[in-house]
Amino acid sequence: MVQDYRELRSEGVDVVRVAIRANRYRSHTAGLGAGVLQTNLVILPESFALDFMRFCQRNPKPCPLVGVSDTGDPALFTLGRDIDIRTDVPGYNIYRDGRLSETRPDIRDYWTRDMVAFALGCSFTFERALQEAGIPVWHIDNDTTVPMFRSNIDTVPAGPFRGKMVVSMRSIDADAVEAAIEISRRFPLAHGAPVYWGDPARIGIADIGRPDWGDPAPVGAGQVPVFWACGVTPQVALEAAGVPLCITHSPGHMLITDVPEDAESPIIRPSDT
Amino acid sequence: MVQDYRELRSEGVDVVRVAIRANRYRSHTAGLGAGVLQTNLVILPESFALDFMRFCQRNPKPCPLVGVSDTGDPALFTLGRDIDIRTDVPGYNIYRDGRLSETRPDIRDYWTRDMVAFALGCSFTFERALQEAGIPVWHIDNDTTVPMFRSNIDTVPAGPFRGKMVVSMRSIDADAVEAAIEISRRFPLAHGAPVYWGDPARIGIADIGRPDWGDPAPVGAGQVPVFWACGVTPQVALEAAGVPLCITHSPGHMLITDVPEDAESPIIRPSDT
Repeated sequence: MVQDYRELRSEGVDVVRVAIRANRYRSHTAGLGAGVLQTNLVILPESFALDFMRFCQRNPKPCPLVGVSDTGDPALFTLGRDIDIRTDVPGYNIYRDGRLSETRPDIRDYWTRDMVAFALGCSFTFERALQEAGIPVWHIDNDTTVPMFRSNIDTVPAGPFRGKMVVSMRSIDADAVEAAIEISRRFPLAHGAPVYWGDPARIGIADIGRPDWGDPAPVGAGQVPVFWACGVTPQVALEAAGVPLCITHSPGHMLITDVPEDAESPIIRPSDT
Repeated sequence: MVQDYRELRSEGVDVVRVAIRANRYRSHTAGLGAGVLQTNLVILPESFALDFMRFCQRNPKPCPLVGVSDTGDPALFTLGRDIDIRTDVPGYNIYRDGRLSETRPDIRDYWTRDMVAFALGCSFTFERALQEAGIPVWHIDNDTTVPMFRSNIDTVPAGPFRGKMVVSMRSIDADAVEAAIEISRRFPLAHGAPVYWGDPARIGIADIGRPDWGDPAPVGAGQVPVFWACGVTPQVALEAAGVPLCITHSPGHMLITDVPEDAESPIIRPSDT
């Protein structure tokens, strides 16, 4: 029994998580979970964990860290009462020596006792806020993936982790750019304010019609291309670091947490449960 | 030539840092540096660093992490162009096996190649904002140290780091409490909104007149005691962890960074300098 997106759309977190855990739902998670924080996922051996955590701390806009597991513990207990990081994402990418080697609907057979899981905030949070403010988000309205580009903006290195920042682009009507900046700035755990807006060439993007990841999206008359720091940045840094085995979510297939999107801190304290 | 507080009060960051580095200024840093972020400091052996960083991530209100050094590098380059963590704080506490063993004006002789320095946001930032909004801060107006209490609120543990949250108390006129909450909430890297306000007994404080650290401060008629998560919390967690050698700033003797207090992220990127 494979479950349908429209069927899950009106369900709460618990029902969605059970469907994902049972591998009944394997598609993207945009709009699921009704107002809870969704996150990118990076799983690494403990020997890389301190440097990766420093990389996130130094690059909070592309890598807003919202949760870290204990070494070997798949629970991620600060993000939800019942999260099992081995099963609760609808799709995983397995990287060997920095290259994608396979995709999997769960990682029960890959999780080892030396692994640490990192959850990083994602753009879904500010995109919902833009839409609620009446600012259209083209790739959502047209059911495509946001266009992403390798920019010429350096990240701040930490140990073996380094590289250029990946940015995502959304076209905004010129008179709404200031509002879009202010709205997204309110969500520092979801990439915050844009890193740049205007002429793409200035941040090293030669052809705005040919993204490095995702689908192209038009920049209409009277619109400005606005660029946010993107959660694909850590994948580029992981390639640079040559981590022997590393696991991420599949793009768009996020971890759905129990934390409300408007929480002051993305932490569920054991005593609150 | 020992330098005077009033003399430094009107100076910029660079002059203040040189005076501290030369051990010409050894007193508290409140109000120095004119609008830049000041931080608490914790220095630990690398073997404890990943767990301590997880402790900070899980307890962002008492332990708002704003900077982490490379192992063995005293530069803390993301917080300033020219910070040397061995000399740039006016006073250091040296802890052995969790107990204060001595205080020092610099730690040139203590820094080793396996050490990691952590900078944590402090209350100076939101206190200045409260004052600017016309909300008096009694301990500043009376030149005493803010009263701090061991509460009954649990922190979220990480490895050997655990314990109760330490809170600082400021008495606020009842009709200004809501404004104080909203103002401090805007500074998540400076402890954010209060963790509690009202009857001290509810968070395990038996006698509001007898703080565990700092000086007593009155709760006047028509005032509410308001409690913020406090940067002394990690010192309690360090005691619990029994770290063999650990160094912190002396209370009130903070690290003065180059980062503006209103920066979106507390990061100076190498390419910006």
